[in-house]
Amino acid sequence: MTRTTNGWAAYGPGSPLEPFTYLRPDPGANEVEIQVTHCGACTSDLHLIEGDWGEASQYPQVCGHEVVGRVVRTGSAVTHLSPDQRVGVGWYKGACLACEWCLKGEEQHCAAVLPTCSNGQKGGFADFLTCDSRFVFLLPDNLPSHVAAPLFCAGQTVFTALLRGTRPGMRVGVLGIGGLGHLAIQFAAKFGCTVTALSSSDNKKAQALQLGARHFYTLDLATLQAQENTLDFLLITASNDQDWERAIALLRPHGTLCFAGMPGPVTLDIPAMTYKTLTVSTANVGGRHDMLKMLEFASEHHVWPMVEIFPTEQINQALDALRNNTVRYRAVIEF
Amino acid sequence: MTRTTNGWAAYGPGSPLEPFTYLRPDPGANEVEIQVTHCGACTSDLHLIEGDWGEASQYPQVCGHEVVGRVVRTGSAVTHLSPDQRVGVGWYKGACLACEWCLKGEEQHCAAVLPTCSNGQKGGFADFLTCDSRFVFLLPDNLPSHVAAPLFCAGQTVFTALLRGTRPGMRVGVLGIGGLGHLAIQFAAKFGCTVTALSSSDNKKAQALQLGARHFYTLDLATLQAQENTLDFLLITASNDQDWERAIALLRPHGTLCFAGMPGPVTLDIPAMTYKTLTVSTANVGGRHDMLKMLEFASEHHVWPMVEIFPTEQINQALDALRNNTVRYRAVIEF
Repeated sequence: MTRTTNGWAAYGPGSPLEPFTYLRPDPGANEVEIQVTHCGACTSDLHLIEGDWGEASQYPQVCGHEVVGRVVRTGSAVTHLSPDQRVGVGWYKGACLACEWCLKGEEQHCAAVLPTCSNGQKGGFADFLTCDSRFVFLLPDNLPSHVAAPLFCAGQTVFTALLRGTRPGMRVGVLGIGGLGHLAIQFAAKFGCTVTALSSSDNKKAQALQLGARHFYTLDLATLQAQENTLDFLLITASNDQDWERAIALLRPHGTLCFAGMPGPVTLDIPAMTYKTLTVSTANVGGRHDMLKMLEFASEHHVWPMVEIFPTEQINQALDALRNNTVRYRAVIEF
Repeated sequence: MTRTTNGWAAYGPGSPLEPFTYLRPDPGANEVEIQVTHCGACTSDLHLIEGDWGEASQYPQVCGHEVVGRVVRTGSAVTHLSPDQRVGVGWYKGACLACEWCLKGEEQHCAAVLPTCSNGQKGGFADFLTCDSRFVFLLPDNLPSHVAAPLFCAGQTVFTALLRGTRPGMRVGVLGIGGLGHLAIQFAAKFGCTVTALSSSDNKKAQALQLGARHFYTLDLATLQAQENTLDFLLITASNDQDWERAIALLRPHGTLCFAGMPGPVTLDIPAMTYKTLTVSTANVGGRHDMLKMLEFASEHHVWPMVEIFPTEQINQALDALRNNTVRYRAVIEF
């Protein structure tokens, strides 16, 4: 028995979202049907709406990959979830679970990985979502649903990158204080790192310090020069172009420049990097094990996204706020 | 009592080496005086002769930082070395031994690190070298002196990079089969990695396979396309520009592109790298502990540089052979 789903779709590149109705089949043996209560809005959603990533967008494009809701129905083989439980889904909602990457807990690199809302998949900007139960995660009891939503992409991305690349005591810089950055500051501070927040203006200084940053600097040349050789790990959450030579100069020997944002081409001075044995790394979202550990950590150490809630009918205002960089710090749609 | 040293110096940028006589003081308390028997010639020496690195060159410029010889005299505080022992010195010949990097065995990042043959220091293209005994390493008995020399820079550089970035079972590519590359193939193969050698032509195919490479490919487009997503670690030992987009395409998820050569500016596609969670790393020479382990490993697992020996009076021919990329695979000057 198929049922009607009421989603919000872009009908063409850059179009505002409009109601879009489609059918969802009954859950398969390993699937669950989720009634969506909240969904975060991420810059990746904007890229999909704009059509920036080629065939990843298919119109009508239903975005949304920071999905939180309640289990409604479960397939016959599902044993670890039951109706009414609060759950979440991130950037991926399925994989083969048999290849080397799935066996390693790196399902995001499975050749058959199924994105939640791209490549023709319809995501969480809708009242219901049906997907593989093995990519559906129980919410910790103490995390309110609207707070939890941004953890499922922004949270997992920065948590995974910081968990792999830092150790307690390191001096960690976070460049860009937005959806990802405000979570990175919290995670890194609670990992026992000394956190420096870097932003284009000092508008977010007070909040960055409150979130756990020890230092806050703006990105002007004099400040950057004064801070050379002070960081062990610099997480770039901004997607706009930066002075990468200056960014590298901030790093100490054996430091890492880690990209969690998606800037355009980055040109690197290899001899300058070699002189300090530097590394450039990149932050993909992580796998299911990373998601579990992230939720557990966020719950136990109180890493809470700061969100602005938009009711469904204001979904386009939410996206505009994201586009204009006025959200503090994540827009969450309430369905 | 100072003594006369007979070295070979470039008297100006790009000049051929000519005899140059200078005085060396008696060894200080922690120093040793070494009678040089062999010294490898490295592309870094060419850069210093040409003046490519600004003030790192000071003329008359005496290069040479793969130094092997015999201890002649030891300072009063030296207890671990004695006359007649065969020893070697690499890119660095001193450091503070008290800062955080020295304490970590990463003396190459000490602010007071003393290069062997740059920044006004006179290196191993000479009959004698006096330096801090704590940067002088005993040669394993089974390593002939002329064979051992290239281990002290080329060997340490690739050993350290591979030791940090690989694990047994990994698929390791080595791009560029020269002084560094022919050692990287041997180390990686003996680390238990499956090695792919990549070269601009197939001239070195037979030797690369003999040194331990399982596969050998030339760098033409069709071959590179056929080898996409096959490597976990790709060591770049060539310093000339490459198609970095193609190089990145060779890597599997979580792969690393490691620069041991010093190419010009490298432009990277961060989204393409993020999609596979790739890393770019750089290979500095390593510290004293890396040197010890490298010598031990080379001795126990028979990682032997292949060298061409040039008598002192042919030192300029040795450098020309290096410039023209005709050496197989390291030129060693015999003093």
